[in-house]
Amino acid sequence: MSDIPREIDDLIELMAKLPGLGPRSARRAVLYLIRKRGLLLHPLADAMHAVAATARECVVCGNVATSETCEICTSPKRATGSLCVVEDVADLWAMERSGVFKGRYHVLGGTLSALDAVGPDELRIPKLVARVRDEGIGEVILALNATIDGQTTAHYIAEELEGVCLVTSLAQGVPIGGELDYLDDGTITAALRARKSL
Amino acid sequence: MSDIPREIDDLIELMAKLPGLGPRSARRAVLYLIRKRGLLLHPLADAMHAVAATARECVVCGNVATSETCEICTSPKRATGSLCVVEDVADLWAMERSGVFKGRYHVLGGTLSALDAVGPDELRIPKLVARVRDEGIGEVILALNATIDGQTTAHYIAEELEGVCLVTSLAQGVPIGGELDYLDDGTITAALRARKSL
Repeated sequence: MSDIPREIDDLIELMAKLPGLGPRSARRAVLYLIRKRGLLLHPLADAMHAVAATARECVVCGNVATSETCEICTSPKRATGSLCVVEDVADLWAMERSGVFKGRYHVLGGTLSALDAVGPDELRIPKLVARVRDEGIGEVILALNATIDGQTTAHYIAEELEGVCLVTSLAQGVPIGGELDYLDDGTITAALRARKSL
Repeated sequence: MSDIPREIDDLIELMAKLPGLGPRSARRAVLYLIRKRGLLLHPLADAMHAVAATARECVVCGNVATSETCEICTSPKRATGSLCVVEDVADLWAMERSGVFKGRYHVLGGTLSALDAVGPDELRIPKLVARVRDEGIGEVILALNATIDGQTTAHYIAEELEGVCLVTSLAQGVPIGGELDYLDDGTITAALRARKSL
């Protein structure tokens, strides 16, 4: 709009490119930022510059880091015998929030996809195979999304690593707090097939 | 989380304070920003600094501006006889998008609210009354939200300006494209009472 000052209009346009924000929520966010100039707008701009200056990819696992190798890869507390394979950094963070996995990660950077022409070499799959051999990994845990592309990728990796190390994947079943009536047929089928004796 | 680098964690925390973004969408947005560093992260940080340095309140109407008076107040193309009163700048922008109003605005900065202890002096109401007298305004159009607080504020302003100038408000009725079955009783009642002959 011509009646919004150019600086503000530019900011709205950039904010609207963020995932989860559209034009309307970008406008709301920018007005909020202007009202909270000292508390939020200045700190946010500074934080963005800081991240832009420091964020990089861990050369070992593909996690975001501020040094050549990420904190998880360099931590002496993390077990070295097992690798958890995830699609992207958001999934790594989700695993870390659960706090249950004490080993190290390998971030693929996506999934195999015939539609988007993503082959193994576009992902960090050759690097994974090399790591498993070089680091003497005993178990690779596939924590890929339960989507078609995720499962295709899981099968491909399992074949690549056959005979090299143990390959496992996250169990499929009823989520904690899940109600059967709201679950899809596929999940119920998977949960029934993988039933456990109590 | 301890395993996210501090700079990135700080940015996530600040992003999560924006309206419409929670912790999860803030994390997604930050990962997206890191991937689009050159295209989005740097420009966004610069745009925020630019807005922080230039954005201010128009001394006449309360609109956001980059100079002492906003572009609408200084434009020779805008009619001077009528004022459109809105609650906040987002509402002013909504009116401008419709492109139908050619006069000038007055941004109240909120609504009267007994609950939040907002009286006329906390809003730009005394300033509105002064403007109407000083600028010889013929009509004040109240474009306030159709909420209880919005309508209370409208009635208060109408009383303040009684005998000074014509005070009108936006019509209430069925929105364009609206289906009766999905409208609340209040809207249908208002639309019926304000029915027009064809």
